[in-house]
Amino acid sequence: MTELAAAKAALKTQAVETPSWAYGNSGTRFKVFAQQGVPRTPFEKLDDAAKVHEFTGVAPTVALHIPWDRVDDYAALAKHAEQRGVKLGAINSNTFQDDDYKLGSICHPEASVRRKAVDHLLECVDIMDATGSADLKLWFADGTNYPGQDDIRGRQDRLAEGLAEVYERLGDGQRMLLEYKFFEPAFYTTDVPDWGTAYAHCLKLGPKAQVVVDTGHHAPGTNIEFIVATLLREEKLGGFDFNSRFYADDDLMVGAADPFQLFRIMYEVVRGGGLSADVAFMLDQCHNIEAKIPAIIRSVMNVQEATAKALLVDGDALKAAQRGGDVLEANAVVMDAYNTDVRPLLREVREEMGLDPDPIAAYRRSGWGERIVAERVGGQQAGWGA
Amino acid sequence: MTELAAAKAALKTQAVETPSWAYGNSGTRFKVFAQQGVPRTPFEKLDDAAKVHEFTGVAPTVALHIPWDRVDDYAALAKHAEQRGVKLGAINSNTFQDDDYKLGSICHPEASVRRKAVDHLLECVDIMDATGSADLKLWFADGTNYPGQDDIRGRQDRLAEGLAEVYERLGDGQRMLLEYKFFEPAFYTTDVPDWGTAYAHCLKLGPKAQVVVDTGHHAPGTNIEFIVATLLREEKLGGFDFNSRFYADDDLMVGAADPFQLFRIMYEVVRGGGLSADVAFMLDQCHNIEAKIPAIIRSVMNVQEATAKALLVDGDALKAAQRGGDVLEANAVVMDAYNTDVRPLLREVREEMGLDPDPIAAYRRSGWGERIVAERVGGQQAGWGA
Amino acid sequence: MTELAAAKAALKTQAVETPSWAYGNSGTRFKVFAQQGVPRTPFEKLDDAAKVHEFTGVAPTVALHIPWDRVDDYAALAKHAEQRGVKLGAINSNTFQDDDYKLGSICHPEASVRRKAVDHLLECVDIMDATGSADLKLWFADGTNYPGQDDIRGRQDRLAEGLAEVYERLGDGQRMLLEYKFFEPAFYTTDVPDWGTAYAHCLKLGPKAQVVVDTGHHAPGTNIEFIVATLLREEKLGGFDFNSRFYADDDLMVGAADPFQLFRIMYEVVRGGGLSADVAFMLDQCHNIEAKIPAIIRSVMNVQEATAKALLVDGDALKAAQRGGDVLEANAVVMDAYNTDVRPLLREVREEMGLDPDPIAAYRRSGWGERIVAERVGGQQAGWGA
Amino acid sequence: MTELAAAKAALKTQAVETPSWAYGNSGTRFKVFAQQGVPRTPFEKLDDAAKVHEFTGVAPTVALHIPWDRVDDYAALAKHAEQRGVKLGAINSNTFQDDDYKLGSICHPEASVRRKAVDHLLECVDIMDATGSADLKLWFADGTNYPGQDDIRGRQDRLAEGLAEVYERLGDGQRMLLEYKFFEPAFYTTDVPDWGTAYAHCLKLGPKAQVVVDTGHHAPGTNIEFIVATLLREEKLGGFDFNSRFYADDDLMVGAADPFQLFRIMYEVVRGGGLSADVAFMLDQCHNIEAKIPAIIRSVMNVQEATAKALLVDGDALKAAQRGGDVLEANAVVMDAYNTDVRPLLREVREEMGLDPDPIAAYRRSGWGERIVAERVGGQQAGWGA
Repeated sequence: MTELAAAKAALKTQAVETPSWAYGNSGTRFKVFAQQGVPRTPFEKLDDAAKVHEFTGVAPTVALHIPWDRVDDYAALAKHAEQRGVKLGAINSNTFQDDDYKLGSICHPEASVRRKAVDHLLECVDIMDATGSADLKLWFADGTNYPGQDDIRGRQDRLAEGLAEVYERLGDGQRMLLEYKFFEPAFYTTDVPDWGTAYAHCLKLGPKAQVVVDTGHHAPGTNIEFIVATLLREEKLGGFDFNSRFYADDDLMVGAADPFQLFRIMYEVVRGGGLSADVAFMLDQCHNIEAKIPAIIRSVMNVQEATAKALLVDGDALKAAQRGGDVLEANAVVMDAYNTDVRPLLREVREEMGLDPDPIAAYRRSGWGERIVAERVGGQQAGWGA
Repeated sequence: MTELAAAKAALKTQAVETPSWAYGNSGTRFKVFAQQGVPRTPFEKLDDAAKVHEFTGVAPTVALHIPWDRVDDYAALAKHAEQRGVKLGAINSNTFQDDDYKLGSICHPEASVRRKAVDHLLECVDIMDATGSADLKLWFADGTNYPGQDDIRGRQDRLAEGLAEVYERLGDGQRMLLEYKFFEPAFYTTDVPDWGTAYAHCLKLGPKAQVVVDTGHHAPGTNIEFIVATLLREEKLGGFDFNSRFYADDDLMVGAADPFQLFRIMYEVVRGGGLSADVAFMLDQCHNIEAKIPAIIRSVMNVQEATAKALLVDGDALKAAQRGGDVLEANAVVMDAYNTDVRPLLREVREEMGLDPDPIAAYRRSGWGERIVAERVGGQQAGWGA
Repeated sequence: MTELAAAKAALKTQAVETPSWAYGNSGTRFKVFAQQGVPRTPFEKLDDAAKVHEFTGVAPTVALHIPWDRVDDYAALAKHAEQRGVKLGAINSNTFQDDDYKLGSICHPEASVRRKAVDHLLECVDIMDATGSADLKLWFADGTNYPGQDDIRGRQDRLAEGLAEVYERLGDGQRMLLEYKFFEPAFYTTDVPDWGTAYAHCLKLGPKAQVVVDTGHHAPGTNIEFIVATLLREEKLGGFDFNSRFYADDDLMVGAADPFQLFRIMYEVVRGGGLSADVAFMLDQCHNIEAKIPAIIRSVMNVQEATAKALLVDGDALKAAQRGGDVLEANAVVMDAYNTDVRPLLREVREEMGLDPDPIAAYRRSGWGERIVAERVGGQQAGWGA
Repeated sequence: MTELAAAKAALKTQAVETPSWAYGNSGTRFKVFAQQGVPRTPFEKLDDAAKVHEFTGVAPTVALHIPWDRVDDYAALAKHAEQRGVKLGAINSNTFQDDDYKLGSICHPEASVRRKAVDHLLECVDIMDATGSADLKLWFADGTNYPGQDDIRGRQDRLAEGLAEVYERLGDGQRMLLEYKFFEPAFYTTDVPDWGTAYAHCLKLGPKAQVVVDTGHHAPGTNIEFIVATLLREEKLGGFDFNSRFYADDDLMVGAADPFQLFRIMYEVVRGGGLSADVAFMLDQCHNIEAKIPAIIRSVMNVQEATAKALLVDGDALKAAQRGGDVLEANAVVMDAYNTDVRPLLREVREEMGLDPDPIAAYRRSGWGERIVAERVGGQQAGWGA
């Protein structure tokens, strides 16, 4: 198989999971701007997600967020998804929206609150059993706002204890993906602030615990692709929460703020064997002011374009330049791939997959956007609170 | 008058304006944790603010936020304030919470939205006339999230035009204070992102337009006291929005994250004559997880302590060391003041003002906190949305 | 003229000034790695710079740095340049490498040191008269390392006084370009830390004083294209010092760290009329570990590629999308240009200019690199110290 | 023993190691400003370091840097130290100043360079055997400047291999302290950029490998005390390289930029048992413009003051407030200690140790500064290059 053929093959089997909550309303602390046609139920979110997969061909699964996507019958939800051509993906827990969690959840100073949080996580595993989801994605808003507010080390002990109980509950083929975040909503300490902390906990827990890299969760200037390369080398990279940012955790469309960084990340994924291995590629974004479904289609395409460029890097030429210490030539090999316009290649890939070569145009022609605006009247729009 | 006497005199006449909205509920995009006893009306906010002044003696005015503090009768509101020993302060506009403002307000691409925004600002000046407020504080959430979303330069033109119309409306003794902010809620461009932009606009508008420094609105590593010194030198420092931050615009209690920075800022204020001149010292904070009134009392005390230390810097010794190029000695003079425990001095100042030397303890003993929890039941708690 | 023809025309007349010092050795505080074949005299630097122009066609001028490029006969230097097809460009002053400047130069507490610094700047204008250079580029290492070390405001007064004296000395057709820098080598205050400070000084000095944007001299997260748009709107953008950075003032090849940012900057230049107006495009880089001449050729090409993409933005489509508030479409118009592979277009442009379409390959074939290694033996290699 | 007595006891036994290179000249890439009286030999550096210990009583050891402090007879050097009342401390390796290290040392693409680097590290262990030093401190300048320059993962493999060989060589009672650094001198990747990477390597190496926290080596906004608490909990905190910074790795006097941060760090040290355990407290600073010996005395005092404040935190009150979820009270307990002026306590401690209560004044009175200026004429001043 030629390199181009191999690249095409990889692009055709790529899978980007989209998050149910990205189809609902979101915003900043200043304002949530509601959009017309936004889903009102988990079922409607799946309908929208199915459209993204229909037009891109590479978004076959949908992440759920509990309790936002809590339903009485998860089997029915899974069936609804399958009928529309998608499957249920990772289960995301929520331990930050109850009043009890003001000072934390699994790290809270009071045992009763920790119990409640762990019970919620255990419930999420129950849901995984029902939905057939393989991954439990854990992000904790836990932390403190003021020096002295709580004992940093004590909170780590509580975190370790809670995670261990949940880890024990995981069944065969189930994983726990631990996400780290630099700051927000806590402003002094965050209990899992960096990859090192997540890694240290996962290491102690065992092989089913792995680290999730959210591309918006780092300090300014952090070299994310280095972390990706390191976690792959350590066999501890569980997946990505893709989005992009200019400042903090802006949750913009992946690839929108720094497409070169996304390319470098995808290059390390390819280099480290992460494309074929057990790494989950997920979006975690907020489309606060732009139309949601086309924004998610565009995001999926951005991941595809970065992947395509990463696959086009001439590995032999690169190795030769690196071994010879030719800084400019090695950089040129990488830049040559990055500067290539891969959109024609991706159009080809899509046509070979039986898709429209232009997913955005195809979505617009489909009339889905107008239809949901017309049909989804009344009810309670989905958002971060529901 | 000895230096200590002069310092005491300055501390007794210091005035820190507290913001009505800090008494209401606030939070992050993830969750607003409601607190018991929170005010339900602008009148109740003033009741709380009056307590802060009662126990600190240096918080005589209260900033209002329109429309959150909109009332039918501003004279009645002003009278209510005076009966409790405080006055109405700056009027803060809000051009970010209507659905129309999704893509901006005064910089919006559509003229009709800009009109609405400017009309709101003009209404705020009407309110100033009614309340006797001297300052119109303008912060704009305007900006864009994606490259290309709007024309950066065109938005500046619209901003200049809108500000000019409002400036013309200002009466004698009224000022326009323009606030800048690095990012949030916009994530690609912010239309007034730094002091330079605010300064350039204020310069063109005229002497009634001045810059407000919000201590949480800067890029990482920014030397804020340099900006303060520069704006004072340019006679363009209109005031402060005090708060503190470890990461972004965290809105923590002023002095909580970096008390040394607050001291350095206050030193430049003293050095530049800002303590006696027309600089407004305001708080702009969010007490998301801590009790609000004592947090505001603590914040006022933190400003006092930083001011006291700044006043204690031995100016003659400092000048001598600076002129002689003695780096260590010059630094030591400043550090000597900073390392001084000024709490005994402030207790003295308070006693001489007829106050309890310990405002927090006095507030706790007053029973106000319990009383508002008991009395303020029912109704709609104040928050950022109301 | 079609848009493509207009783009080509603009690309053919583009001019990027290369800095004499980039051809010499440079490094970090930890180590300067000397390279073979590095120039030993200002004349040899011009020989190398001429090669960059020979192969790119758009690097017709060379910036000098005084005293590193001090010669007895500037007319002879200018003639040497012209014989090789290039001209002398901006004169860069140096007020940071004499022992006297330990605590500053033009802002130093002692008048005698300030006098020396201003005299050096006046000497630079004399050299401009001799070389026919139009621009005096001023970057000051001035600042302080410790709080209290010197009086922030007093230093501004001294700065203003010194700049005014130099401004008066400027002749017709001569400009003063004032550069700002966030930090380094000073670590507490920098006397011109941001564009606002540079702008405020230039405004007072007059129309011959303009601001230089060094792309590596900003706080993390700063939106540089916003500053570019603002300075063009204020008619105060004098030029660029191009380079790129991941962290601080890394001085890497322009476009190497964030090519998308460079494109956005060039888009604002095009949008604001900066391409045809009096904006100087200069490189200011350090090739610490890579071969210098090809690195500079690559840097010039990177500027060309970013410019070509900026010129390809479909202005009408963009305006329509912006006016309609179509966030995704407006962003898509900009991204469409960015994602275009403009290398074929630039190859065409070069061929139409009578150049080799591949400047790097042509340079390599020329044997110049080998020749200078062979010929430049003995003598003192040029570096930051000479 | 009362709490105050316990605090005093801890302060009397505290030990801060000073680095030999801080007594020599240092600077930025722009300029090294030489100072009068600077040592010319390792022996003279020890003379200066002995003065710091003489006046502070808590700086009993001196870190060496190889090859800067290479001597023929290390036993003689150790004896010289002891005669002056100090001992030789950690051995610091240098794998960044030979021309061979342009593209790295232990991570270099070529095996021969890696061999040279590892041999140097092994030599350092030999020196440890000779000096009786317990700690080998490893900081690597290794990294890359451009994407693609070298293989990120391959470099980690080489790093692991090299470290393993050195680890094997360590004798009983000898440790390897691995330092991480965010960036500089490499500007794209750094091979040990964060605590997570250092921790992962140390974990694999074994118990003799531990992490060093240099307080200037983090991304903007990083919560260093969290890292300290975490490493202590993991029993992997080997020591500190103390200094302070406003921007990057500024290497200013510890406590000068953010004394509150230093206090918070020392609080976590105390909390985590790090004061009595096997944690090395070292300075790593550059006194570029200030007098070196008094700057180092001041730095040692700054560590003492932060430690004293940390020791004064009322642990019982803090625990009660934390358990009760009283955010303001918990913060107040910590701030009460921080706001205490501990200088009187430290004067007492010094007097009880038979020292002058004011080390700076005592040093000035000693005439040592004048004496070394007078005596150390001729020869080659020590600096980073020697």
